[in-house]
Amino acid sequence: MKACVLYSGGKDSSLIAVIHKELGYDIELITLNFGVFDSFKPAAESASSLGFKHRVFKADKSIIENATRIIIDDMFPNNGINYIHKEALDLVSKNYEVIADGTRRDDKIPKLNQSEINSIEARRKVEYINLRGFGHKTINNLSEKLFEVKKEQTNMENNSDYEIEIRHLINEINGENLAQKIFPDHVQSRVMGWKK
Amino acid sequence: MKACVLYSGGKDSSLIAVIHKELGYDIELITLNFGVFDSFKPAAESASSLGFKHRVFKADKSIIENATRIIIDDMFPNNGINYIHKEALDLVSKNYEVIADGTRRDDKIPKLNQSEINSIEARRKVEYINLRGFGHKTINNLSEKLFEVKKEQTNMENNSDYEIEIRHLINEINGENLAQKIFPDHVQSRVMGWKK
Repeated sequence: MKACVLYSGGKDSSLIAVIHKELGYDIELITLNFGVFDSFKPAAESASSLGFKHRVFKADKSIIENATRIIIDDMFPNNGINYIHKEALDLVSKNYEVIADGTRRDDKIPKLNQSEINSIEARRKVEYINLRGFGHKTINNLSEKLFEVKKEQTNMENNSDYEIEIRHLINEINGENLAQKIFPDHVQSRVMGWKK
Repeated sequence: MKACVLYSGGKDSSLIAVIHKELGYDIELITLNFGVFDSFKPAAESASSLGFKHRVFKADKSIIENATRIIIDDMFPNNGINYIHKEALDLVSKNYEVIADGTRRDDKIPKLNQSEINSIEARRKVEYINLRGFGHKTINNLSEKLFEVKKEQTNMENNSDYEIEIRHLINEINGENLAQKIFPDHVQSRVMGWKK
């Protein structure tokens, strides 16, 4: 069965991709792009280093513009990121029977609640799968065993999360200071390939 | 890394066992027994049919007696089953670094809430993993693909769930009518081996 994994190049989405592969799904790793900035490149590199098929899914710019408006109003990313992620799942659910993401047990965002999951599964006739059965300690240990991981400060070139395109929009509209305040740089773990 | 999967012989616990195996864990399937009745046999057969190592973990009879008291008081199984399951996880967590069960996204019981999970992971220095990322539709489809499954009415001989030993205790104390009222027979899916 064909399955789509929303993919950022990080440990969580890499691990849910591995689980799908091992369970026998025919997987495609998907990174959304809203036409603001080519932030999908690091994810495409990680996918390729693992030998997984990767596609960029071009989505409407209005989605990221709406999210950016929410985030500037809130001065906080959570609601806007959740909004984008729900739209992303809804978009890919038109093309796949199984859709998955790397949401883990201790994630706050992006995260669908039970009624949102029921809704998308019923409306779109899809199965939604995530990493909710796994905590961060388990994911760290598994990814240590499975993957070569690069720890580094995030920047605009090495990260494929939704926040990169949002930062670009905030930069354009409100300047870099606000973008940096809402999305401070942080250390990220990027998957660089299978453990040798 | 050694992992213990609490195992009943059903689809959910079989699937979480498969996921663990594919992720490279050295797994042991464990069925608890409280010395009331040898209800572990169907689980042992399912485990053997999949080629997994299986162990019966002898636990103190007082646990199932406490659970039975709760269930008779409630005239409903949920609290008692949850109590047993928490005790079961606590017991096996003394012997393993990773403990897992087949709790899926839409399960009501047995189910640990987030603070119970945090508590056992911190107290026992274990990782707890379950099937919370998967809904029943996905699990049905996967088990259809992976396993030979036998659908049948439950009885005292073909089921390894906690309820079998509890039913025995209720039978002894209050008679078969009450046991049947609290735990009516139902259709179960038992894993009989890998799909050919």
